[in-house]
Amino acid sequence: MKKRYLISPGPTPVPEEVLLEMAKPIMHHRTTQFSSIFAECAEGLKKLFKTSQPVITLASSGTGAMESAITNIFKPGDTVLVVNGGKFGERWGKIAQSYGLKVEWINVEWGQAVAVDAVEEALKKNRGISAVLTQGSETSTTVAHPVKEIAALTAGADTLTIVDGITSVGVVDMPMDQWGIDVLVTGSQKALMLPPGLAMISLSEKAWAKSQSCDIPHFYFDLAKERDNLAKDTTAYTPAVSLMIGLRQVLRMLFEEGLDNVYKRHDTLARAVRSGTAAMGLKPLAPLSPANSATGVYTPESVDGAKLVKDLRENYGVTFAGGQDHLKGKIVRIAHLGYFDSFDVIVALSALDMALAGQGHTMQMGRGVAAAQEILSERY
Amino acid sequence: MKKRYLISPGPTPVPEEVLLEMAKPIMHHRTTQFSSIFAECAEGLKKLFKTSQPVITLASSGTGAMESAITNIFKPGDTVLVVNGGKFGERWGKIAQSYGLKVEWINVEWGQAVAVDAVEEALKKNRGISAVLTQGSETSTTVAHPVKEIAALTAGADTLTIVDGITSVGVVDMPMDQWGIDVLVTGSQKALMLPPGLAMISLSEKAWAKSQSCDIPHFYFDLAKERDNLAKDTTAYTPAVSLMIGLRQVLRMLFEEGLDNVYKRHDTLARAVRSGTAAMGLKPLAPLSPANSATGVYTPESVDGAKLVKDLRENYGVTFAGGQDHLKGKIVRIAHLGYFDSFDVIVALSALDMALAGQGHTMQMGRGVAAAQEILSERY
Repeated sequence: MKKRYLISPGPTPVPEEVLLEMAKPIMHHRTTQFSSIFAECAEGLKKLFKTSQPVITLASSGTGAMESAITNIFKPGDTVLVVNGGKFGERWGKIAQSYGLKVEWINVEWGQAVAVDAVEEALKKNRGISAVLTQGSETSTTVAHPVKEIAALTAGADTLTIVDGITSVGVVDMPMDQWGIDVLVTGSQKALMLPPGLAMISLSEKAWAKSQSCDIPHFYFDLAKERDNLAKDTTAYTPAVSLMIGLRQVLRMLFEEGLDNVYKRHDTLARAVRSGTAAMGLKPLAPLSPANSATGVYTPESVDGAKLVKDLRENYGVTFAGGQDHLKGKIVRIAHLGYFDSFDVIVALSALDMALAGQGHTMQMGRGVAAAQEILSERY
Repeated sequence: MKKRYLISPGPTPVPEEVLLEMAKPIMHHRTTQFSSIFAECAEGLKKLFKTSQPVITLASSGTGAMESAITNIFKPGDTVLVVNGGKFGERWGKIAQSYGLKVEWINVEWGQAVAVDAVEEALKKNRGISAVLTQGSETSTTVAHPVKEIAALTAGADTLTIVDGITSVGVVDMPMDQWGIDVLVTGSQKALMLPPGLAMISLSEKAWAKSQSCDIPHFYFDLAKERDNLAKDTTAYTPAVSLMIGLRQVLRMLFEEGLDNVYKRHDTLARAVRSGTAAMGLKPLAPLSPANSATGVYTPESVDGAKLVKDLRENYGVTFAGGQDHLKGKIVRIAHLGYFDSFDVIVALSALDMALAGQGHTMQMGRGVAAAQEILSERY
């Protein structure tokens, strides 16, 4: 017998209340019954994104919404500035290139946030840049990028700020309208505590205006068509009915908790993990601008990180994420976004403690948990 | 948002696999479909009880099966020797008295196990004692009684050994036939990882023989009638269909894990809790003969135990059991029976650590978790 714990940055655990909602008999989507659910989700998402613009929900993974941001707004030959500090930054660039856009890369060392100065300088150097593409939180490196500052740079100019908020929305406050974010994207399987399968995207007036001149072909991901359907409480194509029903439940839970409390909870859990891993002597991957969604730490030199992650998953029943590309085998990423509470942090640190000892790494046990508890106590 | 953890000695957590089985559409009980489930449960329970005798499943709580042991075997005026070391020992005596039996009490200090010598002496002093009634594990005091030794005292004599194994069966090995236990009772909501609602009872040949002369009236709890129905894969009255379907799943899970592994897991978790609470400086309620089902510890003098248990439940989301009668407000009982794994122990100790600190009890945090981890590491 082995209980399983999902401590990876997506998919994240789904609350029972949501699972039970989604387990109810399926309903047809062209009904007033479903339209009222759809309308409640649309209103809730606007509150979550903090925007007056419609938030479109697509039946796709987050990457689908990222792609739609490119294919609905730009023309081949447009130049975009891509913050490339990890796998997902790289993905923005790859999508743009796939559709004939010119990509100017700002390469950022993995574990670092992009410097606002570097973005500013690049924008000054090339006045033809149509958009800055960035992550709110770069999941592969557990870094938070300075979205507010980047958006401020493009405010009042023709340039758009396009943000992959897949591991930011619902984790940290990212008020789209107030900060001047032009496109904000998120997905269901992160802080929205749902299974994968939904992606959300919202465009500012400036982004909608630019989309008028778009000439990249697209069919399924047609944001203008979806916006028009959304105004009639429906969708162009078959929506993911059960996931939408789950989304309504999730939004109700988030608003019941209160968004400020949700952000505060994420902040406390994140600080507890940082403090706990530091007390265990583990070096952080993102010391200067850590995300509140997940915490990456380097495994000790004597320990094979890939083996550690496998051991934790297969023997301890605890699924963390490892490192990608050149960080493969060198880091562990501990998630704390979505349906996470204090004792998930305790389980994570305790499992890591035991597994490190099991791999021959000697240290005094219990220090990580003790340090985390000091911070988690703020919650009680 | 607050996740909830059930760390009380019954009801205990129900595994998802079991919940999902029980959530399937209800079936009729007078069908071959249900009979095959019923038959599989009956066979499985014999393996669990380690008996060649039928194990009868009643739609009742454990107390119903305890009552049936009295009303199906004895005559008013019979004398029974009751091991009274807690609330459940007391209950045996109260049931017996309700049906006109004479009760000889062996009063045992709460937190102590009954001395085998005391039982032996009482049996020698009064040759007319029909049965010894005891618990395998006295849940109210987290004590394990010496069942094997008591059963050995009545072997070969007319006296029966009747055991409330409600928090023992499935926790520790208690082979009914080999030890010579004459009546063994258990319930669904403990190590059997089910919701409350089922009780199981099995009688030795000696107990069945004595039941022939029983003249206490009974109707619903008619063990001979149920035994005859059981032989035809059915029940006298409507069985608790969903719970039986859940029971089949539970038995499959227990046999898949292997009973020896199940007992070993409980032993490891119990030792981890004992070691963890000791490292936290908490005095055990049952230092000499602790049960593997739950661990009672005294709360520090400066802490109100009732307030602590309430704080843990309401603020931390962690439900422990407190003390009963004269132990009310003085102890906390930490369960580790049924669907419990290593990290349940960690959550329990971490929550207790934080809540004690929150109540002003000063100690170095993390010691309990560290000590528990040392023992839990045996599992990996």
